Amino acid sequence: MIQIIKNPDVALWPSLCRRATFDDAAIDSRVRGILALVKEEGDKALRALADEIDGFCPESFLVSEEELANSASYVPQSLQEAIRTAKRNIEVFHQKELPSSFTAETMPGVVCQRRMLPIRRVGLYIPGGSAPLFSTILMLAIPAKIAGCPEVILCTPCDKKGIVNPVILWTAQLCGVSTIYKLGGAGAVAAMAYGTETIKPVCKIFGPGNRYVTKAKQYVSTEGVAIDMPAGPSEIMVLADDTANPLFIAADMLSQAEHGPDSQALVVCHSEETAQRINEELDAQIKLLPRATIATKALQNSRIVVFDTNDTSERDSLYLRFADSYAPEHLIIEMKDPWAIASKVTAAGSVFVGHFSPESAGDYASGTNHTLPTMGLAKSFSGVGVDSFLHAISYQELTSDGLELLSQTIISMAEAEGLTAHANAVKVRVGQK
Amino acid sequence: MIQIIKNPDVALWPSLCRRATFDDAAIDSRVRGILALVKEEGDKALRALADEIDGFCPESFLVSEEELANSASYVPQSLQEAIRTAKRNIEVFHQKELPSSFTAETMPGVVCQRRMLPIRRVGLYIPGGSAPLFSTILMLAIPAKIAGCPEVILCTPCDKKGIVNPVILWTAQLCGVSTIYKLGGAGAVAAMAYGTETIKPVCKIFGPGNRYVTKAKQYVSTEGVAIDMPAGPSEIMVLADDTANPLFIAADMLSQAEHGPDSQALVVCHSEETAQRINEELDAQIKLLPRATIATKALQNSRIVVFDTNDTSERDSLYLRFADSYAPEHLIIEMKDPWAIASKVTAAGSVFVGHFSPESAGDYASGTNHTLPTMGLAKSFSGVGVDSFLHAISYQELTSDGLELLSQTIISMAEAEGLTAHANAVKVRVGQK
Repeated sequence: MIQIIKNPDVALWPSLCRRATFDDAAIDSRVRGILALVKEEGDKALRALADEIDGFCPESFLVSEEELANSASYVPQSLQEAIRTAKRNIEVFHQKELPSSFTAETMPGVVCQRRMLPIRRVGLYIPGGSAPLFSTILMLAIPAKIAGCPEVILCTPCDKKGIVNPVILWTAQLCGVSTIYKLGGAGAVAAMAYGTETIKPVCKIFGPGNRYVTKAKQYVSTEGVAIDMPAGPSEIMVLADDTANPLFIAADMLSQAEHGPDSQALVVCHSEETAQRINEELDAQIKLLPRATIATKALQNSRIVVFDTNDTSERDSLYLRFADSYAPEHLIIEMKDPWAIASKVTAAGSVFVGHFSPESAGDYASGTNHTLPTMGLAKSFSGVGVDSFLHAISYQELTSDGLELLSQTIISMAEAEGLTAHANAVKVRVGQK
Repeated sequence: MIQIIKNPDVALWPSLCRRATFDDAAIDSRVRGILALVKEEGDKALRALADEIDGFCPESFLVSEEELANSASYVPQSLQEAIRTAKRNIEVFHQKELPSSFTAETMPGVVCQRRMLPIRRVGLYIPGGSAPLFSTILMLAIPAKIAGCPEVILCTPCDKKGIVNPVILWTAQLCGVSTIYKLGGAGAVAAMAYGTETIKPVCKIFGPGNRYVTKAKQYVSTEGVAIDMPAGPSEIMVLADDTANPLFIAADMLSQAEHGPDSQALVVCHSEETAQRINEELDAQIKLLPRATIATKALQNSRIVVFDTNDTSERDSLYLRFADSYAPEHLIIEMKDPWAIASKVTAAGSVFVGHFSPESAGDYASGTNHTLPTMGLAKSFSGVGVDSFLHAISYQELTSDGLELLSQTIISMAEAEGLTAHANAVKVRVGQK
């Protein structure tokens, strides 16, 4: 039974929109230590960390040709086919994200350009363990390849026999990534950021991970290595009216809750009865889940908010404002006229419209990206896209006449800012050919 | 006389590409203190900080209607005209940056979208003091308005009489920004990030500043407030062949050097004679600058690298590799055939092509943005653009048939990742209408 809150006053909304918090102080010093060690000692530190944390260090961090070649035989045909279908859809969607370069002659003889270029070398982090997140390889490697990144490497932990889950190896190769290192945790992030004897440093690090990985990414991002985004626990908000099926809603909440004990699911509906029925469905469904313990913990951070008004436009307005306040990573709108709200949302990572658009469609296979902003960052951040693997360079070429035409403008402004040398750089050129 | 290095071995390049470093430990604890205080005490803290740091606290932080209305009379007509010309060029260029939303039906009944939305509320920081950087208002407020941000506020310090430079007030209004607060330093960043009684918090903070401002932006960026980019001291690299005019090159170097003592200017040329002539020009020009002391210090971090080869393709290749290693904020290519290198550059903030394209053109008025990545971040970061003021939301709407078509793909993948509830969210829907 999760908490039901009825007609909360606006003053209470911030507390209802609060995410689960946790104390990172212990993690903080440990991660700093790992980063410093890898920066200083390179591979030696990585080996010591593997021995200490995993109780096992692979002979070679680099996954061998043989391991790569053998991986296919461990991936069932049906799963291979599913992954190929997902890949195709993700490619179709992400191809459309490719921005174009452009040229603008802003004045005669003043030609400006913006060119989009792939980031030279990127690193993808893929968690291993009990749930090998091969779907995240699709979500990162496909846009990286569409962007044209010439070097894409991947780090993922191996098990205590030195084996990396073959679905990860197979999917990575399918997406064109064949440089894979058996490295996990903050050590992997450090290796990608600073480089070691075995691993050349990358310009940008992508991918999810536990709190150590997240903290490590946050630190290296203050030292000149770009990261995809600050990541927090996963979250979902469901907006429901009386056409919504409590069975679907409970299933959607649990698909979020099974991610981790710090996940969060919020439901907004307009009758206490619906809220009760969702709760009953949760109770029935959760018992059957292998990850029931995790999901149960996550539901403790979760809640159902009831706005019991029959005025449709007032209801839509309340739903919309509450959703924008929360700025959910995933927003499912299970309503009769979902676009009435969907088209007005200003803060969400990804919106799932209508009764037949569960989050899992976007998590795996519909085509959209599943690496999305959490913790309310959807107010200002975007999910990962092709643009995350690109950077822009601007260009300008002025003719001597073009510069002359613009010279008085530049000189006036530079002098008003007290920057004489800026003005001089124009003055020395004017009149010359 | 700045340092000249001849034919450096590749092993030496990293040290030649090193930026000036400084110890931030003292700043660090001071900034943390300021942030904590403003978070806790709001306006009261801002007033105490103004009294303590500036020796003056304005009666109202908000710039009044009257101050706004009066500003025009203090801005000479010629300067107004220059700013209007620059604004027009910047608008022409940035209009082209507006990305479009798109829809893709990845499979029958599976419709996905990506929509670009303006960030709801953004804050611009504009340093005041001796050089009021009104040009930065153009570079931030124009793309914010093109993106369609509904709320744009600006913080800038006032002087000890409570006066904000009228050119700043006039330019801000010209660009459609009329909510301006008399606030400077780390306190301003804290106010925009956390909000106070007077200032509503913003979703993203833009703009340059001293090391306190930069550090404060870095901190709040780890707490869920987006920032434009991590900023470091400004820098330039000039590539020169024997068609380059040492007079121009020295002027370009000094236009960088006058920014601050930690600025850096690197020149690459292919004869020691050219290097010597640049040095002579530097000596001659620097004496005449009002900011000579600052520029002199900056030149101590600067150097001229000579690759003395007559083989054009070898020279171009060395120049290109060295430029990409440094990843300069500004790259000027003063060569006979500048595009031979310009079109191959992979890491630079902005490239100035040919002999008549000084950095000051882009700093003020050609149309490109002057808020650019420094410290080598041009390998992965872009300069500020319209996209910096937008965020993407993805959408998907599946019909029941569309979901059914995709169901086996999603279920296979979810089960292979051990995420049963993800599979269930599809299973409960299949067969329903």
